Amino acid sequence: MARKRLRDYGLGAGVLPTGKENAITDVEGVWVGHCTLWQGEEVRTGVTAILPHPGNLFREKVPAAVHVINGFGKTAGLVQVEELGTLESPILLTNTFSVPAVTEGALQYLMERDAGIGEGAGSVNVVVAECNDSYLNDMRGLHVRPEHAREALRRARGGPVEEGCVGAGTGMVCFGWKGGIGTSSRRISAGGDPYHIGVLVLSNFGKREDFHLLGVPVGRRLKGQTPEKEADGSIIIVAATDLPLDAQQLRRLAKRAAFGLARTGSFARHGSGDIAIAFSTGNRIPAEPDSGSLFHTFRRLPEDGELLSLCFQAVAEATEEAIYNALFAAETTLGKNGRRVEALPAERAVELWKESMGRFRR
Amino acid sequence: MARKRLRDYGLGAGVLPTGKENAITDVEGVWVGHCTLWQGEEVRTGVTAILPHPGNLFREKVPAAVHVINGFGKTAGLVQVEELGTLESPILLTNTFSVPAVTEGALQYLMERDAGIGEGAGSVNVVVAECNDSYLNDMRGLHVRPEHAREALRRARGGPVEEGCVGAGTGMVCFGWKGGIGTSSRRISAGGDPYHIGVLVLSNFGKREDFHLLGVPVGRRLKGQTPEKEADGSIIIVAATDLPLDAQQLRRLAKRAAFGLARTGSFARHGSGDIAIAFSTGNRIPAEPDSGSLFHTFRRLPEDGELLSLCFQAVAEATEEAIYNALFAAETTLGKNGRRVEALPAERAVELWKESMGRFRR
Amino acid sequence: MARKRLRDYGLGAGVLPTGKENAITDVEGVWVGHCTLWQGEEVRTGVTAILPHPGNLFREKVPAAVHVINGFGKTAGLVQVEELGTLESPILLTNTFSVPAVTEGALQYLMERDAGIGEGAGSVNVVVAECNDSYLNDMRGLHVRPEHAREALRRARGGPVEEGCVGAGTGMVCFGWKGGIGTSSRRISAGGDPYHIGVLVLSNFGKREDFHLLGVPVGRRLKGQTPEKEADGSIIIVAATDLPLDAQQLRRLAKRAAFGLARTGSFARHGSGDIAIAFSTGNRIPAEPDSGSLFHTFRRLPEDGELLSLCFQAVAEATEEAIYNALFAAETTLGKNGRRVEALPAERAVELWKESMGRFRR
Amino acid sequence: MARKRLRDYGLGAGVLPTGKENAITDVEGVWVGHCTLWQGEEVRTGVTAILPHPGNLFREKVPAAVHVINGFGKTAGLVQVEELGTLESPILLTNTFSVPAVTEGALQYLMERDAGIGEGAGSVNVVVAECNDSYLNDMRGLHVRPEHAREALRRARGGPVEEGCVGAGTGMVCFGWKGGIGTSSRRISAGGDPYHIGVLVLSNFGKREDFHLLGVPVGRRLKGQTPEKEADGSIIIVAATDLPLDAQQLRRLAKRAAFGLARTGSFARHGSGDIAIAFSTGNRIPAEPDSGSLFHTFRRLPEDGELLSLCFQAVAEATEEAIYNALFAAETTLGKNGRRVEALPAERAVELWKESMGRFRR
Repeated sequence: MARKRLRDYGLGAGVLPTGKENAITDVEGVWVGHCTLWQGEEVRTGVTAILPHPGNLFREKVPAAVHVINGFGKTAGLVQVEELGTLESPILLTNTFSVPAVTEGALQYLMERDAGIGEGAGSVNVVVAECNDSYLNDMRGLHVRPEHAREALRRARGGPVEEGCVGAGTGMVCFGWKGGIGTSSRRISAGGDPYHIGVLVLSNFGKREDFHLLGVPVGRRLKGQTPEKEADGSIIIVAATDLPLDAQQLRRLAKRAAFGLARTGSFARHGSGDIAIAFSTGNRIPAEPDSGSLFHTFRRLPEDGELLSLCFQAVAEATEEAIYNALFAAETTLGKNGRRVEALPAERAVELWKESMGRFRR
Repeated sequence: MARKRLRDYGLGAGVLPTGKENAITDVEGVWVGHCTLWQGEEVRTGVTAILPHPGNLFREKVPAAVHVINGFGKTAGLVQVEELGTLESPILLTNTFSVPAVTEGALQYLMERDAGIGEGAGSVNVVVAECNDSYLNDMRGLHVRPEHAREALRRARGGPVEEGCVGAGTGMVCFGWKGGIGTSSRRISAGGDPYHIGVLVLSNFGKREDFHLLGVPVGRRLKGQTPEKEADGSIIIVAATDLPLDAQQLRRLAKRAAFGLARTGSFARHGSGDIAIAFSTGNRIPAEPDSGSLFHTFRRLPEDGELLSLCFQAVAEATEEAIYNALFAAETTLGKNGRRVEALPAERAVELWKESMGRFRR
Repeated sequence: MARKRLRDYGLGAGVLPTGKENAITDVEGVWVGHCTLWQGEEVRTGVTAILPHPGNLFREKVPAAVHVINGFGKTAGLVQVEELGTLESPILLTNTFSVPAVTEGALQYLMERDAGIGEGAGSVNVVVAECNDSYLNDMRGLHVRPEHAREALRRARGGPVEEGCVGAGTGMVCFGWKGGIGTSSRRISAGGDPYHIGVLVLSNFGKREDFHLLGVPVGRRLKGQTPEKEADGSIIIVAATDLPLDAQQLRRLAKRAAFGLARTGSFARHGSGDIAIAFSTGNRIPAEPDSGSLFHTFRRLPEDGELLSLCFQAVAEATEEAIYNALFAAETTLGKNGRRVEALPAERAVELWKESMGRFRR
Repeated sequence: MARKRLRDYGLGAGVLPTGKENAITDVEGVWVGHCTLWQGEEVRTGVTAILPHPGNLFREKVPAAVHVINGFGKTAGLVQVEELGTLESPILLTNTFSVPAVTEGALQYLMERDAGIGEGAGSVNVVVAECNDSYLNDMRGLHVRPEHAREALRRARGGPVEEGCVGAGTGMVCFGWKGGIGTSSRRISAGGDPYHIGVLVLSNFGKREDFHLLGVPVGRRLKGQTPEKEADGSIIIVAATDLPLDAQQLRRLAKRAAFGLARTGSFARHGSGDIAIAFSTGNRIPAEPDSGSLFHTFRRLPEDGELLSLCFQAVAEATEEAIYNALFAAETTLGKNGRRVEALPAERAVELWKESMGRFRR
């Protein structure tokens, strides 16, 4: 039975309206695909792929930036994104020890589609981020193989995004409850046209007592078995927008993901690998020169009005809500060594929220 | 009539215990001094000085680090702190256009106390941070002069810290209410001994509707005249600890100040200059060699237990509470052009909090 | 008697052609102005101003970036340049302890020209960089006052740039010889049109024995009195171009200044404040919205050809040559405490170079 | 027939003395191992491993830091090194597309030796850096497998280091000549005791005409077939020292590698992935607490004398010389598609150097 999202309870983070799917895919052209590995009692893991656009990213890059909230993590590909301010591959998420296999799989996928990669046209920079799912999953077993990355890439599409225990989220734990994949979006009106900020998270962090739902510290009131898992965990936050932010602006946007994260009760514990990656589909950067023109022409968000601050607010709100959606969607999971991580008792959490904040007319 | 602090209402941010004064001065040796300029209708500004220790900082530096949450600001001295990981001057706070005068004043103060500075022993790096108080204060008038910085330095002492409309906080506006100086601390027990994390903020940011008190969005419910002031503003956050964190660890500590800031409703709007500066008094770094020893010997917090995460939590909690203390302490102020910024109606804000969260047994 | 520049001896750094003046002012619209303070025996200092364009920079900003080669320095304004990627004031150079006075003077200058600054239109970010001239100059005396900054700004113009012991360069020492201001430029042809990269340096670093002239370690062969001055010193490198690089690209350009610096024999000693600041006049960023258009339109250098690498090469070559020009132009100077710093014996240095490399047909 | 090193011709970079082997292994405890893949006409690649010490690095980490000279590269593991300032794995070098396989191999190697990794003791951060060898090697074929990384690790030992076309250097091209692995070291005396700075490079960058040998632009004079290979290439620079530098100091040390690189004629072209990684064996950081002590005790290089600047000079000198050693050692290589890259005509290069600089008495 599919679990409900936060909005199904009539709640939402912040004040801005969501996009149609309340998902990262509300940014036109962004696709998401999952490959879930669930084998025996020990394998609870997978891969999630986010495509900035369905075309050849190596030939039509997008502006991108990174903010390392806490760098206790093993992502691949961030150095080049920081240097050039461009993304030329899908972003893939998986478990910590599967970054190599997923990177190799994505590389194969990209080489299959472009004979110039690694031969004349230079190498390609694959971005892979991770969280540690070793509480439920036999991470040492290296069960994710390159083909699983390719499978996640092949399955990518627009529209509604599956959340919770799926893809890279299969074995994750968040605030002592079952975590995983979550997404949310915000709609921004500019010049009469609708634009979107979308966020997708891989949630795997936090101590139960720290969990806040929309301002209310429900974590310390919810009953349930607490896993012995160390609390440090991690979160990967991917933000997309169709507004034409450049890399300099996207770096600042990525920083605001931490503001949404903070509101759920996190303070980025020492052992967390908390990484935010942001890209814009509002400009494409061709790998080869425009014919007949010496310079590229770009659009860029002006910084004199409220629009950029609105983007910052949107990413904070969507990050907060994506984390709740991950928790609300994820189901009780049995994994390695007979360990069991319970689903967040979402109805009870909402009830607790309503007991307090519900009385406060919004 | 002195206004009450958050704790006087029986409330507090987070769960860790405070130090004795619930102030940055709970970190042994840290001193704070204010010089307030309040002249005619136009001058509402000042200087606040934070001394890591009362000795000669140039000769006994302390480890320090910086995190630029949003760099739309005009601080002095951050480059060298980032390069060397040391602080060799007091930290001074003032209005944006008075950074030069305050830097010069601090320089004079330091030169008076050390004939080697600028003559044989090298130059000294003065750290000055700022917020824009031009809504209430005639910032263009450059009323703060070097002697005001020296005055703030001379007045510095330990013990309780004056908050609100004092020193650099005199003309600041926060969430549309009167802002200014606030402070808070947390006590951490390690190996049976008490240590402290203390925070002092200069609060000058936010839109009223964004203001959250301990999770409750009271800002949108509070009544009162809203200034036309643009909402972008800024915040300076100074964090101190007597635990022996090195510069690498302090950089990470400084990053967690943003987590406390986020909980008050900020998402670091485009135009904000949000800067966190952290230092430790747990090691002193002599400017000259230890006699008879080739290398310095330092203590460093181990990263294998919970202690560092506890520091992160403490700085987030103390930052959040210091902001509330600034708002609770600041009083309604008339300033430039007949403008008026009201004090936060603290009793009502607490009442609203209690109406909602108060029902939620903590 | 005016001393000769490197090119007057038939030599030059690297292989790219220079612009007409072989100066930063070869970038159309860039102006330079000096104010020199030479009083009694103790005052040997000044201010140098670089204007990206002669208009109102606050209203028409330019893309800019910074690279901190070694951050043992006290520059003002870098934080905001790093955050926003824009420059909205002239760049001013002076001695270490005069950064406050020069910042205040520039602020006054900008406020005089724009009533909105600090009143409605926000604050302005002034960029001031420095080197320590305390060997020859009474730096503790704070002789530079705000009016000297305004004077340097007023005197700014295009065309040939005075080098050596002038403006901020008056009291500087480089490789144990008299240092100061130097400049150089390179011409790049793109799409049939000429573009320029120009560099201006404030040179105040190095041990005599480390000095290399165009690859030849002449420093250890040149005779002359060596000042007892500590060798650490500093260099400020300002790079300008009319090619439309954005902030992300300018950050990378600024990094290449270190490559030119390295070739003179520097390895950025511990005590040096080595800072590179780069800006482009190829795009202007209005402070207020384009009427009728939601987004700004920018041109950007494509990254698929050789053009960007050519820019990197140009900045390295021009930086190297600007340092030689500073040394070749500066004259023997008597200053504080009867100290004397000799001019580089340029003829002899060139002779030594020719004895070795001159035999090597280029 | 083994080719000669630079010192065999009586030449050397800079002025500081070398260690016994003039290799990174002069830093006590540092081991290097190679695994070379040379199959058919298409496979010219391999793996090189550098071990900071022969023990369990995961349990006894070393302080480390990174400087990204130009980030057009695909290294693994840098984010965590930057966050924590520690290295907990060997550093491995390989070709660009083999980073995943090598990371996985190193992970297997580390897991075999420590059952706690990925199970209770957290994940491990593997550092792998790369250059693009696709001119001579079938990089798209992904011929390096995890076992090759394990083989390189198993073969690691102290003493002389094989240079040139070996391990990761097998297929590399530098200044249009055959490149690869090179190493050099400098000895520093401190308090009467000998310490070392050692550097190992993977050299794969530069245009022939840019090549300088010890200040002399010999590249434009040397005759020989030029490969059509694009010139951008990359270099990885690994620096080690037994002096107790902490992460903050190592970051600064790593920056000075660029100064040595610059002297060979590089200016870090756009397409280069130029990365410097530095570590110190002068402090070990246990993964678990010291018994009976709350804090770790560290030694740290003081910053008040010449010692740190001497380290900076040493790393610049050793980097420059390691690049020459790579070029001098590498032999003419036939590879993919019948391509041929000639060895640097070292005798002729030295002769050209002597024709010019040789006349200049050092």
